[in-house]
Amino acid sequence: MIKTLNDQDARKLFESARVARLGCIVNGEPYVVPISCLLKGNYLYSHSLNGLKISALRENPRACVQVDEIESELEWRSAIAFGRYEEVTNPNERAEVLNKLFRAFPLLTPVESTIARDGLAQEVIVFRIRIDRLTAVSEE
Amino acid sequence: MIKTLNDQDARKLFESARVARLGCIVNGEPYVVPISCLLKGNYLYSHSLNGLKISALRENPRACVQVDEIESELEWRSAIAFGRYEEVTNPNERAEVLNKLFRAFPLLTPVESTIARDGLAQEVIVFRIRIDRLTAVSEE
Repeated sequence: MIKTLNDQDARKLFESARVARLGCIVNGEPYVVPISCLLKGNYLYSHSLNGLKISALRENPRACVQVDEIESELEWRSAIAFGRYEEVTNPNERAEVLNKLFRAFPLLTPVESTIARDGLAQEVIVFRIRIDRLTAVSEE
Repeated sequence: MIKTLNDQDARKLFESARVARLGCIVNGEPYVVPISCLLKGNYLYSHSLNGLKISALRENPRACVQVDEIESELEWRSAIAFGRYEEVTNPNERAEVLNKLFRAFPLLTPVESTIARDGLAQEVIVFRIRIDRLTAVSEE
């Protein structure tokens, strides 16, 4: 039976996920890539080097982030956060977000870490998705 | 180092994936859900009960399907197939696709299996994504 999960259970899925999938729109087409992100209040924080998803999100900021826990085809939970892409540009805020991301995901590449620990390095884009809708379902 | 994978390695990622994420566009917004699918030639086959993704794909057939193998933030592979949603309506072809899906994913819910083994049952939508572009990258 598929059932709808409440907001708290949806948030738990985001809190425990090691990897999420970000959906955005590139030239009118859906585009999905794996990301690491952290839920804090009403925002999902992440970072990226410049590339296709960043240029797409700058053009069309609507995004969704999906996480799941799949035990089998019989037992799974999936959550989706819909929201809007925003870039974090304040140096102090950038540094704070990056520190939290690196603590949560310690295996990030050394080069990226080195660049990013300096909150001023513009090579690293720090961004967040401002969540305006959160849905989750489970099958058990 | 992130490197581009060739077509054969991209296909291997689809062949070994137990779960994929389907991206489509719902009311102008990206929407991502987990699916089970099978790659055969130039098509990714899957099935679904009627719902949001099906109504969305009937309206806007552009889709992408993403799979990945993530060992850690340091070592991962991800592939994306871009293509177009098509419904499989021929009863024989529906039955053939469903049989292959149920062999590959034996834990699908009994109710769904029972309905779907009868290729004529209209409750189950059988569909495929006709791939027009396949990309994959790895970080190792």
